[in-house]
Amino acid sequence: MKIAIINGPNLNLLGLREPGFYGKQTFEEYFQVLVNDYPEISFDYFQSNIEGALIDQIQKAGFYCDGILLNAAAYTHTSVGIGDAVKAIDVPVIEVHITNTFSREDFRHKSYLTPVAKGIIVGFGLDSYRLGVEALIKP
Amino acid sequence: MKIAIINGPNLNLLGLREPGFYGKQTFEEYFQVLVNDYPEISFDYFQSNIEGALIDQIQKAGFYCDGILLNAAAYTHTSVGIGDAVKAIDVPVIEVHITNTFSREDFRHKSYLTPVAKGIIVGFGLDSYRLGVEALIKP
Amino acid sequence: MKIAIINGPNLNLLGLREPGFYGKQTFEEYFQVLVNDYPEISFDYFQSNIEGALIDQIQKAGFYCDGILLNAAAYTHTSVGIGDAVKAIDVPVIEVHITNTFSREDFRHKSYLTPVAKGIIVGFGLDSYRLGVEALIKP
Amino acid sequence: MKIAIINGPNLNLLGLREPGFYGKQTFEEYFQVLVNDYPEISFDYFQSNIEGALIDQIQKAGFYCDGILLNAAAYTHTSVGIGDAVKAIDVPVIEVHITNTFSREDFRHKSYLTPVAKGIIVGFGLDSYRLGVEALIKP
Amino acid sequence: MKIAIINGPNLNLLGLREPGFYGKQTFEEYFQVLVNDYPEISFDYFQSNIEGALIDQIQKAGFYCDGILLNAAAYTHTSVGIGDAVKAIDVPVIEVHITNTFSREDFRHKSYLTPVAKGIIVGFGLDSYRLGVEALIKP
Amino acid sequence: MKIAIINGPNLNLLGLREPGFYGKQTFEEYFQVLVNDYPEISFDYFQSNIEGALIDQIQKAGFYCDGILLNAAAYTHTSVGIGDAVKAIDVPVIEVHITNTFSREDFRHKSYLTPVAKGIIVGFGLDSYRLGVEALIKP
Amino acid sequence: MKIAIINGPNLNLLGLREPGFYGKQTFEEYFQVLVNDYPEISFDYFQSNIEGALIDQIQKAGFYCDGILLNAAAYTHTSVGIGDAVKAIDVPVIEVHITNTFSREDFRHKSYLTPVAKGIIVGFGLDSYRLGVEALIKP
Amino acid sequence: MKIAIINGPNLNLLGLREPGFYGKQTFEEYFQVLVNDYPEISFDYFQSNIEGALIDQIQKAGFYCDGILLNAAAYTHTSVGIGDAVKAIDVPVIEVHITNTFSREDFRHKSYLTPVAKGIIVGFGLDSYRLGVEALIKP
Amino acid sequence: MKIAIINGPNLNLLGLREPGFYGKQTFEEYFQVLVNDYPEISFDYFQSNIEGALIDQIQKAGFYCDGILLNAAAYTHTSVGIGDAVKAIDVPVIEVHITNTFSREDFRHKSYLTPVAKGIIVGFGLDSYRLGVEALIKP
Amino acid sequence: MKIAIINGPNLNLLGLREPGFYGKQTFEEYFQVLVNDYPEISFDYFQSNIEGALIDQIQKAGFYCDGILLNAAAYTHTSVGIGDAVKAIDVPVIEVHITNTFSREDFRHKSYLTPVAKGIIVGFGLDSYRLGVEALIKP
Amino acid sequence: MKIAIINGPNLNLLGLREPGFYGKQTFEEYFQVLVNDYPEISFDYFQSNIEGALIDQIQKAGFYCDGILLNAAAYTHTSVGIGDAVKAIDVPVIEVHITNTFSREDFRHKSYLTPVAKGIIVGFGLDSYRLGVEALIKP
Amino acid sequence: MKIAIINGPNLNLLGLREPGFYGKQTFEEYFQVLVNDYPEISFDYFQSNIEGALIDQIQKAGFYCDGILLNAAAYTHTSVGIGDAVKAIDVPVIEVHITNTFSREDFRHKSYLTPVAKGIIVGFGLDSYRLGVEALIKP
Repeated sequence: MKIAIINGPNLNLLGLREPGFYGKQTFEEYFQVLVNDYPEISFDYFQSNIEGALIDQIQKAGFYCDGILLNAAAYTHTSVGIGDAVKAIDVPVIEVHITNTFSREDFRHKSYLTPVAKGIIVGFGLDSYRLGVEALIKP
Repeated sequence: MKIAIINGPNLNLLGLREPGFYGKQTFEEYFQVLVNDYPEISFDYFQSNIEGALIDQIQKAGFYCDGILLNAAAYTHTSVGIGDAVKAIDVPVIEVHITNTFSREDFRHKSYLTPVAKGIIVGFGLDSYRLGVEALIKP
Repeated sequence: MKIAIINGPNLNLLGLREPGFYGKQTFEEYFQVLVNDYPEISFDYFQSNIEGALIDQIQKAGFYCDGILLNAAAYTHTSVGIGDAVKAIDVPVIEVHITNTFSREDFRHKSYLTPVAKGIIVGFGLDSYRLGVEALIKP
Repeated sequence: MKIAIINGPNLNLLGLREPGFYGKQTFEEYFQVLVNDYPEISFDYFQSNIEGALIDQIQKAGFYCDGILLNAAAYTHTSVGIGDAVKAIDVPVIEVHITNTFSREDFRHKSYLTPVAKGIIVGFGLDSYRLGVEALIKP
Repeated sequence: MKIAIINGPNLNLLGLREPGFYGKQTFEEYFQVLVNDYPEISFDYFQSNIEGALIDQIQKAGFYCDGILLNAAAYTHTSVGIGDAVKAIDVPVIEVHITNTFSREDFRHKSYLTPVAKGIIVGFGLDSYRLGVEALIKP
Repeated sequence: MKIAIINGPNLNLLGLREPGFYGKQTFEEYFQVLVNDYPEISFDYFQSNIEGALIDQIQKAGFYCDGILLNAAAYTHTSVGIGDAVKAIDVPVIEVHITNTFSREDFRHKSYLTPVAKGIIVGFGLDSYRLGVEALIKP
Repeated sequence: MKIAIINGPNLNLLGLREPGFYGKQTFEEYFQVLVNDYPEISFDYFQSNIEGALIDQIQKAGFYCDGILLNAAAYTHTSVGIGDAVKAIDVPVIEVHITNTFSREDFRHKSYLTPVAKGIIVGFGLDSYRLGVEALIKP
Repeated sequence: MKIAIINGPNLNLLGLREPGFYGKQTFEEYFQVLVNDYPEISFDYFQSNIEGALIDQIQKAGFYCDGILLNAAAYTHTSVGIGDAVKAIDVPVIEVHITNTFSREDFRHKSYLTPVAKGIIVGFGLDSYRLGVEALIKP
Repeated sequence: MKIAIINGPNLNLLGLREPGFYGKQTFEEYFQVLVNDYPEISFDYFQSNIEGALIDQIQKAGFYCDGILLNAAAYTHTSVGIGDAVKAIDVPVIEVHITNTFSREDFRHKSYLTPVAKGIIVGFGLDSYRLGVEALIKP
Repeated sequence: MKIAIINGPNLNLLGLREPGFYGKQTFEEYFQVLVNDYPEISFDYFQSNIEGALIDQIQKAGFYCDGILLNAAAYTHTSVGIGDAVKAIDVPVIEVHITNTFSREDFRHKSYLTPVAKGIIVGFGLDSYRLGVEALIKP
Repeated sequence: MKIAIINGPNLNLLGLREPGFYGKQTFEEYFQVLVNDYPEISFDYFQSNIEGALIDQIQKAGFYCDGILLNAAAYTHTSVGIGDAVKAIDVPVIEVHITNTFSREDFRHKSYLTPVAKGIIVGFGLDSYRLGVEALIKP
Repeated sequence: MKIAIINGPNLNLLGLREPGFYGKQTFEEYFQVLVNDYPEISFDYFQSNIEGALIDQIQKAGFYCDGILLNAAAYTHTSVGIGDAVKAIDVPVIEVHITNTFSREDFRHKSYLTPVAKGIIVGFGLDSYRLGVEALIKP
């Protein structure tokens, strides 16, 4: 089984900035944990600050993998295009958020991805990704 | 570890009505699966169609258990009181939904619980509850 | 043919309070008239001020009767849960109101029941119930 | 007793277009049924696609008949002028709709007629008119 | 000098209906008073309940007269088309209302005519028309 | 007969600033014209940029004069207090505007005075005041 | 004189939860203070988390007591039904809140009770109840 | 092939009024050009200022022609009834506008026709009609 | 103990205007009653129709007294500045209203003072002030 | 004559994904048809999923070609920047859509491009591009 | 060169109240610094809590000075009248704020002055005034 | 001291397009002036039309420089991601705009950057950048 993890803008700063808010672990470190914990799964990881690069990657992942964990970060709330990409592909996409976006600013309560995602996991810190993996591997 | 599962209005009809939408399994059947899969956890289950009875139960569970999986169903979208109860207790509450509420009617997009829940899991069918258990048992 | 009449909050005060607005007849008195006028129909009547008790009753009536006349009163405007119950059952539900809710306060113009009801009858005083019966018995 | 039935735009297509939605009976055929079923009542029927012609007719009917069944169709949602006409006359006007307008597009949820109508009957197919007659003949 | 008075829907009922609200004088009677009081002016008067007929008349009056007093009544609040007609012609159009529309229902507070009218006179009963004449004859 | 003219903020600049918009005549010059044209009327004139001073003056005028022409200018759109003063006194108050406020910015379309004014005259330049006098002297 | 105190959802947790927000006194302890301070008044106290149970109690209290102090807590902001009950009874109802609801979340700024309450007392801690008593005993 | 062109309110003034905005050609002149350019097509042309007359004509054209070019002008933004007529007929209707309605007033940005039209052509001057013909004749 | 009472616009008309709405007592008369009833308290009283004068007075009172009863009347609903003054000072300010502002016009439901006031007392007639004193003297 | 066709996000999937919605032809295949059908025109084609890359291309095309057909897809509804680019260049830009965006989700009804585009063509499938060419080549 | 600094309500409390928020320096002290730093400029300073007094001063300053730094404080968000005064005068007015109003309450995000000010400087503490001077002296 | 200037979409056209609106100077020319005027400061300049490239650059600048002048142009109004980047870094970011965005279209009044920027400078033409430098170098 192949799972693609796609992270959006500013998530490359995880562990480097605002540790009080997002924790001290970089995503690369966490990714290694995930890879170790699920040896039967082939993971790949992509991060970009560019909306269109995320669309490109979602389209590609739609052809070669079995499920996507997508944390579009800020683009979650503004990108019609990422939502269209999710809708256009056939593999299940799970929307993942580290923090509870619903207890933050109003503009983070709206998501263009929720209506087209298979499921949504919000607010468990980095563990949200593991729960996403769990959801995808359920037979 | 003790986990309380609290279900709101009309979830007693699971498996009996609208199977095309909610599936053919009753919650009681699913609950037994969960109990079997996690023998180290002590579960208890409560369902009511009455908003105040759910508040009563959340208050009680706040005293004796280590985590709550709450699917408040229709009250999710209208109940300030359940949100207040969640906020008043100390144990983590995870908001769970079977269907993707964000791809249904507009009035199901708003939740009084999301800002006060620890995390939110939406749209994985009954498997949403298992993911909620997974989230709670993570050390 | 069996018809269930289900009345919501404060309708137990009919004939006792605000007679200028709601008339002087109690619902029990009116119910007897209805029973006499349609001897071929088996009626039953339920009233509660509790939203969840109304949901319980709608669910039950959905199994044993052929049609429901539902005047959810104040819950009409706030209850997603009663709307869900109406949608979950197979028998036709007719939304009934004694007064013209559309010429009253703005918050009484919105109804969570209208989209899921078979039909709506509003503003004919207690005669709204008789019209509801007429609608249900039409072959 | 004299009852005027006034139908608004596109209702002249009943039975000719969109039978899946509005049924196969023309209103003229249904009108004949109504005339036969209530021999003691003198009915008259008027249909126009022109808002002002409907206003003209409502004003006239206000002088010579005892009640009006008004299905203003699309003008229901946009015509302040028809509402003003209904308010200006003394005979009771009952707003009637064939389909459940509340489960259709949002712009069909608003009506300029409901606040000034005596009562509202929505969603019973052509039987909505019979129920309107029943409501008017109630002593 | 030629002045056209154009009245919209239901104003033909002036003096016949709702006298407590609109007074007991018919517009025809009032019109005669106006004709007598301003012998140097050539008036003409048109009333219709049909939006398009009012547009027709405004277009015509735009070619042969020196000013228009327009009381579009209910169409004031809903007609983009009458506003367009007013904008398309060169003679000054004064918007006139008998009652104070701003102390009535919310939907009467909006006017599609005010932005394109030369001036607006509201709430002086039938005397609003005399003030409109006064405004037009000011050299 | 005594008429008070009360002008609000920035109207002291009439004729001095923005002549393209408001004309070249100062209000004092225009006031003299009015005094001359209606010798039988006793006028008095007050202008202030201070909301509360306008309230003071409206209260006073309410005791000694027979009618008020009020151009509250910018306060028209923001002052609940001036509206309350108009409502509290018994003499008729006519709301007057020089320019067509409805074809200017959106925030000038709302008025706290229109619902409590006897009538409204908008958009006739300084002639709006003369029309206001005409409205007040009508027996 | 008889005064009923009716408390809504989660107020049974007063003194037990969130002491930083609501204080350390249980309502039962405070109630005893009140009983002692006003020996000439007969008090009774009711709390429920169930909306309909509060409606039941308001209806009952409307028959046997001289005034009601109502803190509907979360239901304040969502319950049309409690508002209807308050309106249906004749004894004065005073809306009471412990915290300043207007400086909390937006959804706590709206109340269905304020328009039908005799008066409103907000933000004085438990002393809000004493002020309510003072208001009711004023001859 | 038969194509009906149906024009709404004030379009009879094309070429006569506001030439700076709408150009100097009357629609009759332009229509002749179209007839000459497409000799293989049978055109017919209808204009009215009356909403209901447009509905009548759309209904009729729905029976005898192969496509409709509809410029409903002002009614585009307010007429639910014209939208219903378009939906009720089977032939394709193309919504056409001469000016770019989206760069004009806000109330011209909304259209009741766009959701039911086959396609929309906006802003090419009278050439919008030719493009509409091109769209209809495409095999 | 020193308490300042600060009244806003039009409250100088109490007892003089609209007695049906505000009662027949002037505030000066009522103030004397208050002074007599609480001899241990030093009161002072200020009224102005000018928003800025109220701000001046609140600032001053913030330096020399122990509590303020503020009835900002119309400015309650529009004055950010008075709210800022209340927030800037250290003594407790209690917002007081004579009538139930929440059962009047919509624009009276919003208050810029409630979020910064210590507490709010609404709707008890002039007795609202006495309740305010009671609230301030509570040790 | 040189025409640039610029396509936005996910349009590279045309013919590959959701053929039921967008058809089975890739844009490259369609582009060849267009090139063949208009041999006198020099076309060039650009597609990107990146908003800024589209802005770059529009700026460039503004210098070397005579007209642009722009289908910004999802960015149509969210991109102020593309709208600014269109406004900044001198050559005419025609907004083109394959599907009828107005009969899809609400967020697709708003466009930041329509106010600055020369004209808009919506809903004719790939033929929308041919109509755009027709509009540009009209002398 | 002459520059007028005009400060609105509560700014007289600078340095006296809420030092954590606004700093410890009084505006008078800061003003002296400014006077010393720019000896070639003639400054004058005015503060009032009264909206109309600010309008008076802006009008006056418009006649005798070369630029205005205006911090209207709370009136920024509510005063149409100050905006009108700014628009009526010819000298450039720069809107200045000490704190970042956009990161405070929602009602501080709207300004009636921004559309008519020459420029806006927000959030630099008292240094905002120096930057305003810099902006005005730029040749 | 190191200052980074980061410019968003279409600002590469400064001096080349719309000179009436934005002036005739390219930003490169202006940048040279700035470099010359502040020899003690090390400036660097970055422009991109790509939102994500701006985020990349802000992140980088956050590590190596002492302050950022950010003119995100169109992205100001739509980019949650740029706002997040500004919030994530420690160096002060000053939001700069050349034109007065508040007197342009409504959608330019909202900014996702203002709440997280240190300060905002709007409307001084290219001089806005110099004022930004002045703000940053203030000790």
